[in-house]
Parts: sequence; structure tokens; C-alpha cells
Amino acid sequence: MGRYRGERPDQQITLSTRKNTDRFNISKVKESRKPLLSEEDLFNGIRNGNKAVLAQAITLVESSKKSHWERANTLVEKCLAAKTRSIRIGITGVPGVGKSTFIETLGKNLTDRGKKVVVLAVDPTSSRNKGSIMGDKTRMPELSKDARAFVRPSPSGDSLGGVARKTRETIILCEAAGYDIIMVETVGVGQSETAVHGMVDFFLLLKLAGAGDELQGIKRGIIEMADAIVINKADGDNLKRAKLAEVDFKRALQLYPPKENGWIPTVSSCSATENRGIHELWEIIEDYVAKAQKSGHFSIKRKIQNKEWLLQTIEERLKFDFYNHEAIKSQLEVFLSKVAENKISPFRAAEALLELQRRKSV
Amino acid sequence: MGRYRGERPDQQITLSTRKNTDRFNISKVKESRKPLLSEEDLFNGIRNGNKAVLAQAITLVESSKKSHWERANTLVEKCLAAKTRSIRIGITGVPGVGKSTFIETLGKNLTDRGKKVVVLAVDPTSSRNKGSIMGDKTRMPELSKDARAFVRPSPSGDSLGGVARKTRETIILCEAAGYDIIMVETVGVGQSETAVHGMVDFFLLLKLAGAGDELQGIKRGIIEMADAIVINKADGDNLKRAKLAEVDFKRALQLYPPKENGWIPTVSSCSATENRGIHELWEIIEDYVAKAQKSGHFSIKRKIQNKEWLLQTIEERLKFDFYNHEAIKSQLEVFLSKVAENKISPFRAAEALLELQRRKSV
Repeated sequence: MGRYRGERPDQQITLSTRKNTDRFNISKVKESRKPLLSEEDLFNGIRNGNKAVLAQAITLVESSKKSHWERANTLVEKCLAAKTRSIRIGITGVPGVGKSTFIETLGKNLTDRGKKVVVLAVDPTSSRNKGSIMGDKTRMPELSKDARAFVRPSPSGDSLGGVARKTRETIILCEAAGYDIIMVETVGVGQSETAVHGMVDFFLLLKLAGAGDELQGIKRGIIEMADAIVINKADGDNLKRAKLAEVDFKRALQLYPPKENGWIPTVSSCSATENRGIHELWEIIEDYVAKAQKSGHFSIKRKIQNKEWLLQTIEERLKFDFYNHEAIKSQLEVFLSKVAENKISPFRAAEALLELQRRKSV
Repeated sequence: MGRYRGERPDQQITLSTRKNTDRFNISKVKESRKPLLSEEDLFNGIRNGNKAVLAQAITLVESSKKSHWERANTLVEKCLAAKTRSIRIGITGVPGVGKSTFIETLGKNLTDRGKKVVVLAVDPTSSRNKGSIMGDKTRMPELSKDARAFVRPSPSGDSLGGVARKTRETIILCEAAGYDIIMVETVGVGQSETAVHGMVDFFLLLKLAGAGDELQGIKRGIIEMADAIVINKADGDNLKRAKLAEVDFKRALQLYPPKENGWIPTVSSCSATENRGIHELWEIIEDYVAKAQKSGHFSIKRKIQNKEWLLQTIEERLKFDFYNHEAIKSQLEVFLSKVAENKISPFRAAEALLELQRRKSV
């Protein structure tokens, strides 16, 4: 974990040029085991709320096999056209803050009221760790068994961008399947927050009382993103500290400029294990959605997010096309070695490789 | 600060398609004011240790005017070929940790011994803040006046990638100018650490005693990168706490897997204001360099960094070429609007735009 990009370009290159070999093989195995449904059948199954079909459709979307792309795109496009009224909620917090229990409790509260709930995860560490800690069904045993809930483990991927893209597409499929609430969780370590924040309507930051880093600069970016800060584990001996932390956060939030949509981030406490403060939090979210829909900011935000999604898709494709170009595949290593030895500068090498890509594709 | 990508694609797009308008104008003004030296003259001036010429050369490298690229590339390539024996040191720490004073004290210690020292900065926030807090000469008044030192403020840029590229190239120019020690500072907020770590030989993490977040998951990635952790402001009432923090960090570091080059990260304390612990730290760095040179890891690391530099250069160019393509410039907004309204999926739109780029460039 945490291997830095600069240290392992070889691995980077392998990852970039041969995308996701393991996933590729998994999907191959799955494919040989059971023929995939047609896009039409997948779409109909999704619309009928068939969870097994939804799961298969998500597997298609997550596949990195190029032959699956066109099918996945067709399917996602069909689902995009389906009119839905979902609320997308991003949930973040450092490990230990109690995200699983919180999501389980909030999810159960919602399904008890007849809502259909999805839990997805964006976990940038999973691709490197070979084993995601996020979205694991065993972490949310109740919700996983709930007929109105759908829990999907974090997709693997060679980049946060790839994982984020798959999660966006999965959201679209789940919405077409009629789910009302989409919860996207992530672990509180930076970049992935920004990715999740860019795909949800409401962004929730879970905190613990007295963790000491409340007002540290390091968390500033994440605090700014939050529409609500919720202090979890506000129970037993922690209650008093949670109240103090609430005051601290409220004071701190006053230092930030107001959000463009006029929303003032809320600060509250909850105990997920005791199911306290969860109902109140849901009322906050409903209040936010009602206000944002009334002011038009709800759809403005989604439009902006869609635009950003296009830009990310383009940038991913540019890289994919480059690293998968035949001429590049055969010459990249040669140029990398020359650059390593200072025999040629990175710009000359980049120029030469880009020229190679241009020339050979004519 | 901290505006997230998803919220402002319009700004993003503007930034992406019209790179750095403000810098463009600045360089235009500078150009009209004073004719730029030829690459040959710049190179000779740099090699002769002329600071004014070095500064002008860096301005050329930082220019985003396309007509300057070729000249900048030629110059950097000349400088790359010059044999140099520098040590590149990355320095990070959250705001308030005392980076300026630390760098000033370490720098003065080095120039007093006859070393030539450069201070550069990678500050990803500067481009959005319109006003960098990093590398400001007034923050290091002594070093800025020192004949053996060269302090350069953080380049502005529309992306961390752009800022990092300019910093890499500036390092090459400074090395060709005969500087022995290149210090690259950054603020401790995530991505920029990885960028700086990818361009230096030795990475230094400055900490304060008792800041409370020592062992929090949030800092894990940065702690893993560190070759040395130095607890600053270990003076007066802080001395005891600093010693305790040392013990904590040493214990924590044992949990990490050993570095590939065999180096065991050190933990020490210093007081930059009282100039204590700085000399000892320099001995640690010299020890590291000696060992890494002996084992060959010093040059292995630089080669790996060069390769990564090539990959980053390629990816930047791919984006630049796309967003600056005439057909894309005229059609991007159209497709962005369609995607915003869910009239077309991001993949179809990306396909269509990429096809446009391909077709028109033939």
C-alpha cells in the first residue's frame, strides 16, 4: 500500500498497457461458465428489479475486456435514459470511525420505510492491496440479506479513475433498477473523497469525538466538501466529548465560505450501534434535497458532474489508446530506457512516441 | 482553496483548453520588455553560474507559450547532458510546522560550508489561490540574500502535473548551474508529496510533537514515503514532548515494510530557530547518499524517476493536444451540454470527440 508512483514505473507501465489482467481472467472464467445475457435482456432484468441480472450487468460494466465496452456502453446508455428519482449520498471517514455499522443502521432504517437502498464503495487502495476492505458484504450482514438492499463490493481497478468510472456506471444501473438511495462509501485518505464527492448529491463526513485532528490542515479539503459532519459513536462515555466536538466543528465551519447552493453544512452526533441520531440525520438529508430541488441546484450539480464525467472519460481513453497502440507497445520500453540513462530528454522521447502513434494510425 | 474538481468543470475546461492565460500574458510582457537570450547564451550563462540568466531560463521553462516549448526543450536537453553531482531533497510538513525556518537554517548551514543551495517549491494550491505561499523569498530572507543560494518561488500552473513538470525541469537547470543541493519543499496535503517524492533522492517529513495525528491513517502514505522524520520546534517546553514523539514514531515505523534500498528511516528532533539537530540531520542525509551510491540505488532511483517523468510528459501532451485541437475546441462545449442533459452518454460523447480529433488531424 502507498507505493508511490515514482518508484515503480515498470509496474505502472504494466498496469497501463495491460489493463487489469486479473480481472480480465476472472471475467473470462465467468464468461465461459455462463453465457452473458444480451443488453436487451440485461436492461429488462434490471428494470424488473432482478438482483442477479443487475449483478451480471455490473460485472459487464466492470469488465476491462475491450469487446465488452460496446455492450456496456449500450446498456449504460439505455439506463441513463430511464427516468429515475434517486438520492446519491457519499459517506467518508477514516478507518475505525464505524462506517460499516453506520451504513448498516442508516440502510436498515431506510429499507424499513420501504426505500430501496444500494451500497457501493470507492476504494483506491483495493487495486494495490489485492483485497478490498470496502463494500464487503460480511461487513453489513443485515443489509446484505435485506430484500430491498443491494450491497456491491468495491470494483478493482488499476487507477482511482478507473474505479470511479465503474462506480459511476454502476450508480446508473442501480438507479434504473429502481433503487431510491445510493450510498457510496470511501475511506478517508484523500483523492478518493474528491472522486466520490464528484458523483453524489450529498456528502457526509463521519468523525469521532476527540480524535485530535479536527482542525488540522490536512483535513481541510475534506471538511470543505462535507454537507454534513456526523460525530459517530456518541454513546456511553463518549457522549460528552461528542457534544464538545460538535461545538468545535460548528465553530470551525464558520470559517469556510458559504457553499454556492446556499447550504450551511450541519454538525450532529449519532450512535450507529444504538440507532440514535440516524433518523435526525436522514431528515437533514431530506431537507437538503428538498431545498436543492426547489432552488434548482440539485440538477445543476448533477449536470456539472456529468460534464466532469465526460472529461474524465476522455482523458482515460486518451491514455488507453496510447498505451494500447501497437507501435507504442513495441517502442515504449526502448524510449523509457533511453530516458532513464539521460540519453534523450523526456520531451524528445514523448514527441517521438506521439509521432509514432500518429503516423501508424493513419 | 480545496474546490473540488467535480464542482467546477467549466473552470476546469477553461483551464484545460486555454492553458494559463495569465502566465501567457506575463511572458508576453516580459518578452516585449527584454529580448530573450538564445538557448546557447542561456546555457552558457547557466554554466557560468549567472543567477540572472538562470532565472530567465527558468522563466522560459515555465512559459506555457507553445513557441517557447522547443527552445525550453533544447535548453533542458543541453543541461541534462551536463554531468552533475547534486543531491535532491524533498521537504514536507503541514502549515505551521516551521518549514521556512527549517529550510533557511539548513540552507545557511550548507552555504557556510561552501555548498551551493537551491530552494524550489511545489504548491498545488497556488494555481487556484492566485498567490502562492510557497517559495516566497520573504520567507527565507537570509538565504535569499546568500550568494551561494538561489530561492525560486513556486511556479503557477493549472495542474499539479504542470507544476511538477516545471519543477523537474528547473531542477535540471539548477544542477547545470552547479548547485550541489536542491531542496524542494511542499505543503503536507497529499498529492503534491507524491509528486515531490518522485523527483528527489531523499524525502524528509517535518513534524511537530504532540500534534495528535502521528499515527492516524490519514498520514500513512506520507509517513511511508519519508526517509527521515524530523520533529521540529524541539525547544523550550517542547523538548520533552519531542522526545516522546520520537519514540512513538520509531515504534510506528517498525510496522512498515523495509524500503527496497535497505534504508531504515530515521527519526530525530531539531530546533530550526536554535540551529540544533540540523547538523546531525545533514549527517544522516550524507550517510544515506553514501550508502545509496555504494549500493547503486541512488542511480536506480533516478532512472526510475526519469521513466516516470516520461510517462507524465506523455500524458500531459495527450491532454494538451486534445484540448487544443481546433475541432475539439469548437465542439467540446456542445458535447458537454448534451452529456449534462443525459441526451448522450459520456462514452458516446468521448468516442465522437476522439473521432473528431482523429479525422481532422489526418
